[in-house]
Amino acid sequence: MKKPVLLALLCCALPLSAQAQFAKPEDAIKYRQSAFAVMGTHFGRIGAVVKGEVPFNAAAVTANAEIVAALSKLPFDAFGPGTDKGGNTKAKAEIWTEQDKFKKGATDMQEATAKLLVAAKSGNLEEVKKAFGATGQSCKACHDNYRAK
Amino acid sequence: MKKPVLLALLCCALPLSAQAQFAKPEDAIKYRQSAFAVMGTHFGRIGAVVKGEVPFNAAAVTANAEIVAALSKLPFDAFGPGTDKGGNTKAKAEIWTEQDKFKKGATDMQEATAKLLVAAKSGNLEEVKKAFGATGQSCKACHDNYRAK
Repeated sequence: MKKPVLLALLCCALPLSAQAQFAKPEDAIKYRQSAFAVMGTHFGRIGAVVKGEVPFNAAAVTANAEIVAALSKLPFDAFGPGTDKGGNTKAKAEIWTEQDKFKKGATDMQEATAKLLVAAKSGNLEEVKKAFGATGQSCKACHDNYRAK
Repeated sequence: MKKPVLLALLCCALPLSAQAQFAKPEDAIKYRQSAFAVMGTHFGRIGAVVKGEVPFNAAAVTANAEIVAALSKLPFDAFGPGTDKGGNTKAKAEIWTEQDKFKKGATDMQEATAKLLVAAKSGNLEEVKKAFGATGQSCKACHDNYRAK
């Protein structure tokens, strides 16, 4: 085994250091966009309930929140060095020059989705609305800073 | 509330009947492709272990198998009527003319991924190899029949 691969594996505590696991930048970009797309779809379904377009069903909201919370953990390992270019990405260069701030934004969002799941399980629509709003804010914070229009 | 919406919601037992939840065929196509892309990435990481390219780490394989099993449940609700066209899809028309067979293929794959997760948790590489092979066969069966080259 080549040394760089071995080193990458040694660093591979959970959560998986996935950035070393993409063969090409395009693969990482496609992966993170896909994870965000799936997450966004299920987040949007909770949004439809929050907006009153779909009646509140705690089981359905919980199922969506489970997916959102699980998916929230995936994309960020795919923002490794060198993945700023290579596909059709809107990722701004600041992601790689403000790593601490970017990672804090990721953690904030993951924590918000965990709270959204707790709110969904509570069966209380007002709690869901509050947690949905907070999660949306956490999404928006990173989009405003790190996603090109 | 309009009647069709109400009817769609009444049918909305878990697993969510998501096909009614996409505004446009393109949205459903993007969603299912995204779910397959994320699933494929993590399945591929287990494949690298099975092929001996990456050393066996039961925790890492389990983490990947968890994601594969969870994601395996998502794409199929997005193959609703009218989603055969609208995006850059390789889905073949037979999906909609052989619904029973297609759904059986989906279920087979979901069951295979559940077994892969059990194998991963066993910590036994030989079990992982066997379950990985069976899961790969279940992927291939649908790709051969229902995905254009």
